[in-house]
Amino acid sequence: MSNTVIDRAAQTEHPVLDVLAERWSPRAYDAETPIDEAKLASALEAARWSPSASNSQPWRFIVARRGSAAHHGIHSALMGFNQVWAGDAAVLIVAITETTDADGAPISHAVYDLGQAVAHLSVQAHHDGLHVHQMSGFVADQLRETFGIDERLTPMTVLALGDLGDATRLPEALQEREVAPRTRRPIDETLLVNA
Amino acid sequence: MSNTVIDRAAQTEHPVLDVLAERWSPRAYDAETPIDEAKLASALEAARWSPSASNSQPWRFIVARRGSAAHHGIHSALMGFNQVWAGDAAVLIVAITETTDADGAPISHAVYDLGQAVAHLSVQAHHDGLHVHQMSGFVADQLRETFGIDERLTPMTVLALGDLGDATRLPEALQEREVAPRTRRPIDETLLVNA
Repeated sequence: MSNTVIDRAAQTEHPVLDVLAERWSPRAYDAETPIDEAKLASALEAARWSPSASNSQPWRFIVARRGSAAHHGIHSALMGFNQVWAGDAAVLIVAITETTDADGAPISHAVYDLGQAVAHLSVQAHHDGLHVHQMSGFVADQLRETFGIDERLTPMTVLALGDLGDATRLPEALQEREVAPRTRRPIDETLLVNA
Repeated sequence: MSNTVIDRAAQTEHPVLDVLAERWSPRAYDAETPIDEAKLASALEAARWSPSASNSQPWRFIVARRGSAAHHGIHSALMGFNQVWAGDAAVLIVAITETTDADGAPISHAVYDLGQAVAHLSVQAHHDGLHVHQMSGFVADQLRETFGIDERLTPMTVLALGDLGDATRLPEALQEREVAPRTRRPIDETLLVNA
């Protein structure tokens, strides 16, 4: 296995857009190539135009390119295996959302709408040949301290974003995951009612 | 204004996929045409292949076609203006997520991952010429009672899904919204750090 594109397209039962079927979350990132700034800008622009409750746009991002103090700061807050591979990514992004308003009242759809925005970002990035891997394993309080994140804001995920790298550089356990088939439960089990 | 496609494409500052730039949330739905079952299946398939924390796939859907008791049941739980227009949609979907596990412990990314799944569904639907409008204004407890939704599951949004309809049938206030430009704050205000 070398630095080639692995065919991990989903075995869909109904046709979906190539970018949706082919999107996956690698752990092998190219540690040399800098981010293509135009592609990064397009990915963030895609998130920008995501829908949200009453157009509230609760999403916020910390964007850090490899080599910056911010990239190091995010990397050092990752937990477990994430630290092993994610530092190679050309960009690390902390995906944050505004969970309470100025009066301290919860914003009901802030987390949901962040998920939508990151999905739009990911779809655009994959269309442009980049890859995204979202992580929930990080020490949120460490990120809060490092970046002075307001208490009204909640870091939900860290995204690795960049070009695909050489999977043979990964530890063996992660290499296996890198080529494992993508699986999902049948759609019938997702539909509580289909009327 | 008749039953024609309105150009509401976002004025993006960086190029994004047409389907992302052109996606918007109409209120005028075609009240006659039944849903194209193949397109509905593709939209649900797109949601199926969305990413989630540890591939937990927390999303569940109640899918109801116009004319069914379930469609009526969802429509009657909508609040305010949503009741005025959403009943025309060929399909109403309740987007639900598994917010606590079998032991009652919260699932941290259940709501976020549902947002991603609905984003994937919406992108596929718009690609196929359907439209999606997500609503947060509904009486959740009424949906719980109507459909016997388990307490471990939380209804987060109701989606109107279908073909675009004649906007002149909408009340005047909603007609104005239907043609208003889509707006988002500048990306710089979204980036807490850009390093």
